[in-house]
Amino acid sequence: MNYLMIAYITGVIVLIEAAFMTLPALVALIYGEPSGWYFLITLAAVALAGFLLTRLRPQKRDMYAREGFVITALTWIVISLIGAVPFTLSGQIPAYLDAVFEMASGFTTTGSSIVPNVELLDNCMNFWRCLSHWLGGMGILVFMMAIVNLGGGQSNHLLRAESPGPSVSKMVPNMRRSSAILYGIYMGMTVLLIVLLLLGGMPLFDSLCHAFATAGTGGFGVKAASIGYYDSRYLQTVIAVFMVLFGVNFNAYYFLLVRKWSNAFRNEEVRTYLAIILISSVTIGLNIMDMFSSFGEALHHAFFSVSSIITTTGFATVDFSLWPETSRLILVLLMIIGACAGSTGGGVKVSRMVILFKSAAFEIRKLLHPGSVKVLTMDGKRISRETIQGVQGYMLVYFAITVVSILLVSLDDLDTATTITAVAATLNNIGPGLNMVGPAGNYAMFSPLSKLVLTADMLLGRLELFPLLIMFMPSTWRKH
Amino acid sequence: MNYLMIAYITGVIVLIEAAFMTLPALVALIYGEPSGWYFLITLAAVALAGFLLTRLRPQKRDMYAREGFVITALTWIVISLIGAVPFTLSGQIPAYLDAVFEMASGFTTTGSSIVPNVELLDNCMNFWRCLSHWLGGMGILVFMMAIVNLGGGQSNHLLRAESPGPSVSKMVPNMRRSSAILYGIYMGMTVLLIVLLLLGGMPLFDSLCHAFATAGTGGFGVKAASIGYYDSRYLQTVIAVFMVLFGVNFNAYYFLLVRKWSNAFRNEEVRTYLAIILISSVTIGLNIMDMFSSFGEALHHAFFSVSSIITTTGFATVDFSLWPETSRLILVLLMIIGACAGSTGGGVKVSRMVILFKSAAFEIRKLLHPGSVKVLTMDGKRISRETIQGVQGYMLVYFAITVVSILLVSLDDLDTATTITAVAATLNNIGPGLNMVGPAGNYAMFSPLSKLVLTADMLLGRLELFPLLIMFMPSTWRKH
Repeated sequence: MNYLMIAYITGVIVLIEAAFMTLPALVALIYGEPSGWYFLITLAAVALAGFLLTRLRPQKRDMYAREGFVITALTWIVISLIGAVPFTLSGQIPAYLDAVFEMASGFTTTGSSIVPNVELLDNCMNFWRCLSHWLGGMGILVFMMAIVNLGGGQSNHLLRAESPGPSVSKMVPNMRRSSAILYGIYMGMTVLLIVLLLLGGMPLFDSLCHAFATAGTGGFGVKAASIGYYDSRYLQTVIAVFMVLFGVNFNAYYFLLVRKWSNAFRNEEVRTYLAIILISSVTIGLNIMDMFSSFGEALHHAFFSVSSIITTTGFATVDFSLWPETSRLILVLLMIIGACAGSTGGGVKVSRMVILFKSAAFEIRKLLHPGSVKVLTMDGKRISRETIQGVQGYMLVYFAITVVSILLVSLDDLDTATTITAVAATLNNIGPGLNMVGPAGNYAMFSPLSKLVLTADMLLGRLELFPLLIMFMPSTWRKH
Repeated sequence: MNYLMIAYITGVIVLIEAAFMTLPALVALIYGEPSGWYFLITLAAVALAGFLLTRLRPQKRDMYAREGFVITALTWIVISLIGAVPFTLSGQIPAYLDAVFEMASGFTTTGSSIVPNVELLDNCMNFWRCLSHWLGGMGILVFMMAIVNLGGGQSNHLLRAESPGPSVSKMVPNMRRSSAILYGIYMGMTVLLIVLLLLGGMPLFDSLCHAFATAGTGGFGVKAASIGYYDSRYLQTVIAVFMVLFGVNFNAYYFLLVRKWSNAFRNEEVRTYLAIILISSVTIGLNIMDMFSSFGEALHHAFFSVSSIITTTGFATVDFSLWPETSRLILVLLMIIGACAGSTGGGVKVSRMVILFKSAAFEIRKLLHPGSVKVLTMDGKRISRETIQGVQGYMLVYFAITVVSILLVSLDDLDTATTITAVAATLNNIGPGLNMVGPAGNYAMFSPLSKLVLTADMLLGRLELFPLLIMFMPSTWRKH
């Protein structure tokens, strides 16, 4: 294990977080909020620690899969622990465990909150919550790779450990350029969204916060009624459409940028993703029609909720927890499916689902025609046996973690839907679930054990299980 | 497709069912119940149809996988449709769809009932319900193979399609002898159970019915309070232990019979199954301790419920639906795990779970040590890639069916736990679920659509998905 390299990269990450903390401090200055001082205190302490860690210039720059996983897991735990400090110091979220839950929820772009009413928080605090979504959405390690040169060819393990999806395809051979392109597209789309929200009459502060939360597919907001606060069909539709856009594999945008049109549009995952959104929206729209004045209005709220849930954002215009059981269960299903690989969204990812379904169909076919020699393809390319086995292994671990989490959270003895969807909503980085953790509820009533389990689930979900699991496996730390 | 062979075997099966219908008619005679006439009328009509069908002596006796699947699916649908007739003719279950639900539940050894109070049914009807468990438990096609000579080597496709588990190992090379040995062990154990129940003071009629239902791991009974009616620790324990025994792979008993002790005890599946029962019973016992006068009593009811659920029997001594959420969810988990392959129990089967977990652990290991060349083993033998893929494919189809069923049943707009556990309890052939379908509830309130879906789920679960799916695939019926 290359301990020096791990310490060095942790130092760089911590410095980046300190740099971003200047922004909420600035917000506090503008609004005259004394709680802003706690950001300055925290960032000063953190910057010092980061400075000392980055003095450890490691001679050996070797990084293998092990180091990649450990650094990624460690980074995400550390930024959550640090990000939580100003909340507790300022007393805005008095219990540190609650603050860590809130920050892990922020960075992992989950959006589950233990804050009963966000409108009572200071603006700088809400800004920091939403900013954490933006930073976590594309990944803080990817951000680091875009600005720091780690030395040639060593960083692909990091990108692979942090980026979502069954297989990471580099857009360009150079890791640093890939990261920079990703962040460039991400930033451009965020700016565009801010402008569109401002044009719709949303105040600047709200626009910034909601754009960050939309871009990262997070779901934190600054209003207790979430997006339902803005009684504007335009604003709600803009956010719904951008949620869908941020849930698309960013490779598609790169292909658009370099005018490889056919590559952009031939993507099976994106087409399946859009088809699922369409079918679910219409089905739910029909199912909830009686609750609204027209089918159009039902469809509007159905589409908003579907894009919010499948992209794992978690915004709400209405309380979908009160919808009929079929709509509720479709939403739970979308929670698990999630967005596209290589997007800022969470969940299992559409591409994994596509691979799973293709391999299931394949098995049935083989049962009937044992001699058949067909192969599985996706986007016209053959899916390797390793990819299929990897995806199936992923799903197994995913279900095992789901089951263990549900059993632990069930010790709080809440109702079945609350228990199950609390785990589904955190593990898939959605935010709200159903019943007590629905859009009108929050996660404050859970026991400390459950909060810990759900925090772990958020990190497991964002990092796609393996980095954290591997970090806690004894064999990882044995000498080889 | 060998249509003549399909018709011929259906005829034989139908004759066997008619023969078994003489038993409830006999019960009606003893108790002087006029409803017994409807069994005689039905069996006369059915026997005639069976006689005519068996006149079609097929020249070509060839059967391939396709025929095996189709015959199996068809057989189970036909026996349920026929078995339901006396209920509706006699007016004891007026709606034919309800009667079919009840009979499919009987033959598939599910034990879900649409009868609000079984004590109001005639004895001959209850006898037939419980007898259907016994017949369905080991499989009616296996029964046929034990008594009818189909011609050499053609019937292994049938055994494979009807017998539960990821891979069927023949005990002896001869199919007919294998089937006869299976039924011999099955009958011997059933007789032993009847004797033990009689010794405990249970009336003869009740002993017969409960022994049939225990042997088939079905769960129908003759008392509204299920086994809770018998306020005898001895009787409840005898039934709990025999449920566990009937959930064991019957190969183990065969090895005991032929004194291959090491083969019988080395079985990884059986050991895992017993370990799960032990751990779940103690965990639930601790969780429900406050509800009973002593830990001993809590453990007794926990053990009874655990063996009832994991073996997919569905008997109850108390209403476990009222237990704390953790216990409820552990039971839901056991519903899915199910009993051992090659037993009369349903569910996914312990061996599939073992293979799944081993392959998941394997994937994680490979992620860390890509060069590792370890292989997966079970019972000391290597698990082939085909077996692993088959199991993973099975799980995918299983989850897909679960999801579709839940969505369809959710149209009834009942609570989440009722909807989900109704599907889990029928697809895994358990019987009772939680809340409205808990031990104190029944399935009468569902809409006709839901009853149809749940009936299909019972058949899908008992036949392990593929026979029914394949029967309804158009490509099965195309000429090859």
